Amino acid sequence: MMDFTYYTPTKVVFGRQAEEHAAGLIRELGCKKVLIHYGGQSAKASGLLDRICTNLSQAGLEYVPLGGVVPNPRLSKVREGIRLCQEENVDFILAVGGGSVIDSSKAIGYGVLNDCDVWELYLGKQKPKGCLPVGAVLTIAAAGSEMSESSVITNEDGWLKRGLSHESSRCRFALMNPELTFTLPPYQTACGCVDILMHTMERYFSQGSSSELTDGISEALMRTVIHNARILKSEPQNYNARAEIMWAGSLAHNDLTGCGRGGQGKGRAGDWATHQLEHELSGIFDVAHGAGLSAIWGSWARYVYRENPSRFAQFAVNVMGVPNRFEMPECTALEGIAAMEAFYRELGMPTSIPELGIQLNEKDLDLLAYKCSFQNTRTIGDFKKLGREDMRNIYETASRV
Amino acid sequence: MMDFTYYTPTKVVFGRQAEEHAAGLIRELGCKKVLIHYGGQSAKASGLLDRICTNLSQAGLEYVPLGGVVPNPRLSKVREGIRLCQEENVDFILAVGGGSVIDSSKAIGYGVLNDCDVWELYLGKQKPKGCLPVGAVLTIAAAGSEMSESSVITNEDGWLKRGLSHESSRCRFALMNPELTFTLPPYQTACGCVDILMHTMERYFSQGSSSELTDGISEALMRTVIHNARILKSEPQNYNARAEIMWAGSLAHNDLTGCGRGGQGKGRAGDWATHQLEHELSGIFDVAHGAGLSAIWGSWARYVYRENPSRFAQFAVNVMGVPNRFEMPECTALEGIAAMEAFYRELGMPTSIPELGIQLNEKDLDLLAYKCSFQNTRTIGDFKKLGREDMRNIYETASRV
Repeated sequence: MMDFTYYTPTKVVFGRQAEEHAAGLIRELGCKKVLIHYGGQSAKASGLLDRICTNLSQAGLEYVPLGGVVPNPRLSKVREGIRLCQEENVDFILAVGGGSVIDSSKAIGYGVLNDCDVWELYLGKQKPKGCLPVGAVLTIAAAGSEMSESSVITNEDGWLKRGLSHESSRCRFALMNPELTFTLPPYQTACGCVDILMHTMERYFSQGSSSELTDGISEALMRTVIHNARILKSEPQNYNARAEIMWAGSLAHNDLTGCGRGGQGKGRAGDWATHQLEHELSGIFDVAHGAGLSAIWGSWARYVYRENPSRFAQFAVNVMGVPNRFEMPECTALEGIAAMEAFYRELGMPTSIPELGIQLNEKDLDLLAYKCSFQNTRTIGDFKKLGREDMRNIYETASRV
Repeated sequence: MMDFTYYTPTKVVFGRQAEEHAAGLIRELGCKKVLIHYGGQSAKASGLLDRICTNLSQAGLEYVPLGGVVPNPRLSKVREGIRLCQEENVDFILAVGGGSVIDSSKAIGYGVLNDCDVWELYLGKQKPKGCLPVGAVLTIAAAGSEMSESSVITNEDGWLKRGLSHESSRCRFALMNPELTFTLPPYQTACGCVDILMHTMERYFSQGSSSELTDGISEALMRTVIHNARILKSEPQNYNARAEIMWAGSLAHNDLTGCGRGGQGKGRAGDWATHQLEHELSGIFDVAHGAGLSAIWGSWARYVYRENPSRFAQFAVNVMGVPNRFEMPECTALEGIAAMEAFYRELGMPTSIPELGIQLNEKDLDLLAYKCSFQNTRTIGDFKKLGREDMRNIYETASRV
């Protein structure tokens, strides 16, 4: 087992009416003026925003709303939020939404508390000194941003998508009411399940020594997501299935599934190549993150599995329920990859890039690999280190139907 | 899935030399004067205490040591600690040891920050307003107190053992170096493994709705402890085995294994009858907590399993590897109980009270049940509610070899 630190200070309130704890928890923190940050119309139409506003008002808290966060959240909206917080002396940001809204809220929080331009932080040119306190009312189970230290923002100027991880951005609280996800369309529900599985697999497939306990937790988590995603296909308002997936989403990305695994450094265990390959894709083509991940994962997996076939065989047997062909771990491994792709298709998720409606030509492949390698200055991946050529190969394989 | 809150703010630093982070973390909290609280001679003899003192001194922190905490930690030592902290203006307590030392440190922390007598808090007559910050350098994997909100203290006046759970007592940090447990004798190692398993089983066996994810995590945790406890029998200095068990000990009791399970209220999911039956035993006879638990558990399990045989069958199959006799869940259940007892014996742990060297007569049985029922004023257990007569029956069964 490799050394690790584990720090998850986010207070989780899970269950029906969880959102009603917002005002009380903000007051406990001594904050007074809240930015209510949200995405599109659904939070308004469902009455959720009104209920939160009432909840804050009744507790004597002031607030100012800011909606309009889009998937693959954008720097311009972050800048708008920073200005608003400064003008209004906001001292707490309440994110009402999923990963995009929470990530955007964290970025605003960084912008308010740091003197430099916020994008400098995401480029790694400056280190954050802190982040305005953020809390979340979760309405989409997917990104795990409600318990993670990370956020990802897209700069429209060049469509650069960059992540930033810093302890100070962990949500002070996460209010998780599975009922708030009842009305998510099947496609978004499926995208969320893919994202949750990928957060677990990115850590599961690393070259660091494995941990028996962390492996067991990760495998249980993936089995739970797969089982309950199937239930939601026919029963989108099944409370328990929504709850299992919502809680799995948080545990998949709060670092629990990486404890003791080591990895590529930067403080986070895991491979993360699929995420990084996907970031370029969704940065340029604005596809749903989960769909982008499922379109690439199989091509990545077949490109790298020979580095450690027994790891993929373990995944196949313990997660996908593939019978173990002990004498042929490579066959077991490949069966596991195929089983996961079949599951993705069962959910209506793509397993290739053309299924995203994107036809990549040779130039596109060059550009994606160039951007993903940061102009040929970095490798990605830990399970297998991938250079620019490897990235191009994977994009190319994923481009075939 | 039942509603729950989950709050684990303890910063974990896990791995070799983890203890060297003590001074830095205490300074981050702005504290200046540290009570170094420890147990017997082993922390001194191993040089651990010296290293910690040097670590604090070099960081400009003042400290005052207080040793002598015993298993089933006592109120008189807590009172001594409170006086010392007040005289010396201590603002941080560093527990160097296992559950007894950490529990004692929490009790001292309560005593310093609350005006009432500290025992009033443990009797539930007063509610704690807070607790002096506590951090832990863990040297025994067992109690999970390093991430839990609970502590248990024994009042020598009447040999009353009482627990207190309060958020304010959660350790600010837990420094976990598995090497510090290399020299633990086999008996103590085994006692720790029983305690870890029991913290998981107490939550696993409750009547609240189960959670698929929490079940899977709990089952993985128990399998991990059983597997690695066996390794330690022949390889007490196996780093990975020590590490798996140490991390399992924290996760078993930081509430992760209770999420969504509901339970008997009081904010904590689970049954806890075996713990409460054991508390009376170790309160009076001063046995090792883990040994007391293993001496009672089988008798408890056979007394209650008919309330929900399929739950015990799931445990038998998923944790103990018993073949599922689908048509006879009661048989599967009983096989699982027998398999766990066989494992306890394999570790040299007792599965009856006489094996603890204690011969109970009729009066003893009456007294234990009377005390455990708080003079016949409470029931215990959630899987099956147990009154005074039930308690006596279980003590009696456990008294037969």
